Amino acid sequence: MDIENLKSHVHDIPDFPKEGIVFKDIAPLLASAKARNAATKLLAKPFMNQQVDYVVGMEARGFLFGSLLADVLDAGFVMVRKPNKLPGSLVTQEYQLEYGTDAIEMQLSAIPDGATVLIHDDVLATGGTAAATARLIKKAGGSIIGASFLIELDFLNGRAALDGIDTYAVLHY
Amino acid sequence: MDIENLKSHVHDIPDFPKEGIVFKDIAPLLASAKARNAATKLLAKPFMNQQVDYVVGMEARGFLFGSLLADVLDAGFVMVRKPNKLPGSLVTQEYQLEYGTDAIEMQLSAIPDGATVLIHDDVLATGGTAAATARLIKKAGGSIIGASFLIELDFLNGRAALDGIDTYAVLHY
Repeated sequence: MDIENLKSHVHDIPDFPKEGIVFKDIAPLLASAKARNAATKLLAKPFMNQQVDYVVGMEARGFLFGSLLADVLDAGFVMVRKPNKLPGSLVTQEYQLEYGTDAIEMQLSAIPDGATVLIHDDVLATGGTAAATARLIKKAGGSIIGASFLIELDFLNGRAALDGIDTYAVLHY
Repeated sequence: MDIENLKSHVHDIPDFPKEGIVFKDIAPLLASAKARNAATKLLAKPFMNQQVDYVVGMEARGFLFGSLLADVLDAGFVMVRKPNKLPGSLVTQEYQLEYGTDAIEMQLSAIPDGATVLIHDDVLATGGTAAATARLIKKAGGSIIGASFLIELDFLNGRAALDGIDTYAVLHY
């Protein structure tokens, strides 16, 4: 399945969640086993010949292709969640929003010291959440080998926030 | 991998998210590729010889094994989300909480008329969310062929809320 065919499974939704934003809806991509499988293989491709111990995926949509990506790479999957969702000892990282701040959390024991970690989310926009996730992984003692996104919004230049991390996206807009 | 070994990958967290609740933490199960794969196969097993067009998974933890289950069954995956997360024309279903009500949503176009649908979530507790999901699927025109959970809390008898739906769980507590 070529990239244009995959892109036909991502629908533009204007003015969602608010006016002026064009939302990239991946529901049609999830709904097609064939397209979903092709996208997963492309997500994994740049990292197939590297040892990936864990894929770290961000709540909630990062759980979807994140677990599939972990499966293809025969890696563990680790959740990054919004505050007060994960039990046990946690690492927390705040990050900037357009107005104010938000935070994400990960279990401290999730990543053994020195384990190799691949970051995944569905969309790379400004890179704020992904950069905060990278900080969480470092706090936990992990070694980041890259970041793999389904979609990158090139005009937002989010990869600048992931300076020094091998960053890859399947679909560019 | 036998059931006791799988259960060793689910940790009891007392008093989370609030006092008196014992939270079943599936993080260790996700973190082990081998255990995760064994659990996915067991989730799929009762439905392997049936035509499953779509797996419907509930935000957020239902996205994890839900997408893996869809992969094994070669089915589409459809998201059920909390309000204001999904774009487009939606079906909405309210359900009762201990105090007050909550709601879940699904895209109206997600399930073609007559498509066969398998419900998935990580934990079957009181069955409130799963029963609401079943109503969403019926509203959208889908035909429910079953429900497959990773964990069932037998003492809460949530399957009573799913009366008439073939309900299966990998791990019972």
